[in-house]
Amino acid sequence: MRRVAVIGVGHSRFGDRQDVNVKELAFESVKPALEDAGLTPKDIPYVTVGSIGVWYEEPLPAVAIAEYCGLTGAGLVRVEAACATGSAAVYSAYTAIASGAVDLALVVGVEKMREVDTSLAVELIGRAGSYLWEFEYFGMTFPSYYALYATAYMNRYGATEEDLALVAVKNHKYAALNPLAHLQKEISVEDVLSSYMISWPLKLYDCSPITDGSAALVLASEEKVRELRVDTPVWIAGVGYSSGSSTLSQRSDFLGLDAAVKASQMAYRIAGVRPDQIDSANVHDCFTIAELLAYEDLGFCRRGEGVKMIRDGETEIGGRIPVNVDGGLKAKGHPIGATGVSMIVEQTKQLREEVKPSARQAPMKNYIALTHNVGGTGHYCYVTVLKR
Amino acid sequence: MRRVAVIGVGHSRFGDRQDVNVKELAFESVKPALEDAGLTPKDIPYVTVGSIGVWYEEPLPAVAIAEYCGLTGAGLVRVEAACATGSAAVYSAYTAIASGAVDLALVVGVEKMREVDTSLAVELIGRAGSYLWEFEYFGMTFPSYYALYATAYMNRYGATEEDLALVAVKNHKYAALNPLAHLQKEISVEDVLSSYMISWPLKLYDCSPITDGSAALVLASEEKVRELRVDTPVWIAGVGYSSGSSTLSQRSDFLGLDAAVKASQMAYRIAGVRPDQIDSANVHDCFTIAELLAYEDLGFCRRGEGVKMIRDGETEIGGRIPVNVDGGLKAKGHPIGATGVSMIVEQTKQLREEVKPSARQAPMKNYIALTHNVGGTGHYCYVTVLKR
Repeated sequence: MRRVAVIGVGHSRFGDRQDVNVKELAFESVKPALEDAGLTPKDIPYVTVGSIGVWYEEPLPAVAIAEYCGLTGAGLVRVEAACATGSAAVYSAYTAIASGAVDLALVVGVEKMREVDTSLAVELIGRAGSYLWEFEYFGMTFPSYYALYATAYMNRYGATEEDLALVAVKNHKYAALNPLAHLQKEISVEDVLSSYMISWPLKLYDCSPITDGSAALVLASEEKVRELRVDTPVWIAGVGYSSGSSTLSQRSDFLGLDAAVKASQMAYRIAGVRPDQIDSANVHDCFTIAELLAYEDLGFCRRGEGVKMIRDGETEIGGRIPVNVDGGLKAKGHPIGATGVSMIVEQTKQLREEVKPSARQAPMKNYIALTHNVGGTGHYCYVTVLKR
Repeated sequence: MRRVAVIGVGHSRFGDRQDVNVKELAFESVKPALEDAGLTPKDIPYVTVGSIGVWYEEPLPAVAIAEYCGLTGAGLVRVEAACATGSAAVYSAYTAIASGAVDLALVVGVEKMREVDTSLAVELIGRAGSYLWEFEYFGMTFPSYYALYATAYMNRYGATEEDLALVAVKNHKYAALNPLAHLQKEISVEDVLSSYMISWPLKLYDCSPITDGSAALVLASEEKVRELRVDTPVWIAGVGYSSGSSTLSQRSDFLGLDAAVKASQMAYRIAGVRPDQIDSANVHDCFTIAELLAYEDLGFCRRGEGVKMIRDGETEIGGRIPVNVDGGLKAKGHPIGATGVSMIVEQTKQLREEVKPSARQAPMKNYIALTHNVGGTGHYCYVTVLKR
């Protein structure tokens, strides 16, 4: 495989973005990504768009976004893998470059979810599993799928609602330092515990919000990196992926996500790194419990010790592996197609040591970072290892 | 780039498939494709699913299809490029193998469009362009977009409604010989001319039907082809792609599709072939005019001579370049996500010289075939050159 680097990153403000349409929202990240790479739209031969696209007026948005961003003429494709859509879009662009087919590609992840009301949004998200069986017949929604994992985890390892709340408190603390985050405010454990119940033990503040946003990356081959004399390329060292059963009733337990375990092992093997070498990570904290499962699925700690990591502050700046110090899905927001791309934007900046304010910059020792992007409830998982 | 071959093909019956759900419909092509390749689902590490997916109960179908087909655990992604979705799914799997990331991949294209009534289907298809502007404000639908091309072409080159009808008559003739086709009946020029008007000069029989169906391919690296001792690998010799403006009002003329011209030139250059070397082709005849434009955009003839090709029977079996001798979108049917995959299934069989009945087998001289898959009205185009 040819080596591939991230050479440009862009990120819109996440939040309630009724001030823009989906094309304008995409442009907000595409423009800075191209500028960061020192390129113009005409330099880009291939574009992947990560978007679920069930929310807004442009149901097939890739061509509309391409025209608005000046990318008409490029190869175009939209990619979807539920909430792992962004990472899947990165993977498609990555393999196109790694194969030798192109030397440059642009990835844009975008979602404008607040076009629909919250109940419809929750319904649409809930379909990202076994629609006809578990969703329709058993009334399972996305929070209730993760609640199964939360109750099983609490029962097995003695974790409490307060422990889950600590994840939300940490991620809100960092979102308060991130001017692009949706929920830029600190919260307390008490705020989480007193927020209204969604699906026990998950309360409102255990859940990621419904968010609009976009994020973009420019990827380049090693030859192109040299030709463009890129100062600080961030290399895609390995991508792992796997999928889980559509029906949760097929799962062997609710203590971890098989797809995430397999995806991370594949990514570590390809990248030739160990979990203890990771300097900074973004994990898929769509719900607070999901972040604890991620610590364990990714091998940051042993089974059952995720709860200890959050209690001990091991995933804060200054801890063993800072996680989601941009606010995570929980507080930065989770515009589905943008999320996986946004994670790689964040980790690229971490590896470049250019995160502002410095209170959000993870200390770099090995210059290795990781993103973990889950679709559905472990239905899809993509893990990407980055190296400077 | 590593070489990549088609080593297995599968194809469902196209038509009104209310007898199956989308998972079962996908299975109908996945199973024979794996059997054709001598593989089992567990051999497949990466799966791309081509599907628009706006029609049916499973809005994010990849994971549901994977579970039903025994593919859980593989890397999964759904791909969309409007009506070029199938080819885009093939391209994603192709680059994954060509890059060295995997040695095998499965592509399944599937659409179950008849879940919605025809007027909603036409609305949803019509959105595959400039939704807010030309569709919503000007009332343009998909047939009326192509009618603009038809009237411009007729005006410039003296083509008639009868000439357009000849495309439908040819494609129905071959569909009548294809047991998997949706409309297995011959029709006459008079039948076309007397069918009801959709958007002048396009009448009902100038339009492809609303069809359910699936098609699947197994792709393999050269190493895997050797390891599996594949008898007749069909190599992907080159893929070209491009995109056109979202708004048709940005187009310079309506006499051809820029994206198709660029995509074909790219595919020919990569494959190192000339149009006059093509033994057999599938082109994107969503409307009869689209097939005439394709002849010219692909360089099968000069500008304005497409109409002469159909009049002279040059694109029938025995003619210079047999085109759409499986019935084409026009009569085999156009289940959007499946269409581009179905084209490559057909051309793989043509190159293997195993088409039954033999009245549909194109004579092979150079053992080179082509597929031309357009999304929207030249919004996307993928051209794939295959060689035995």
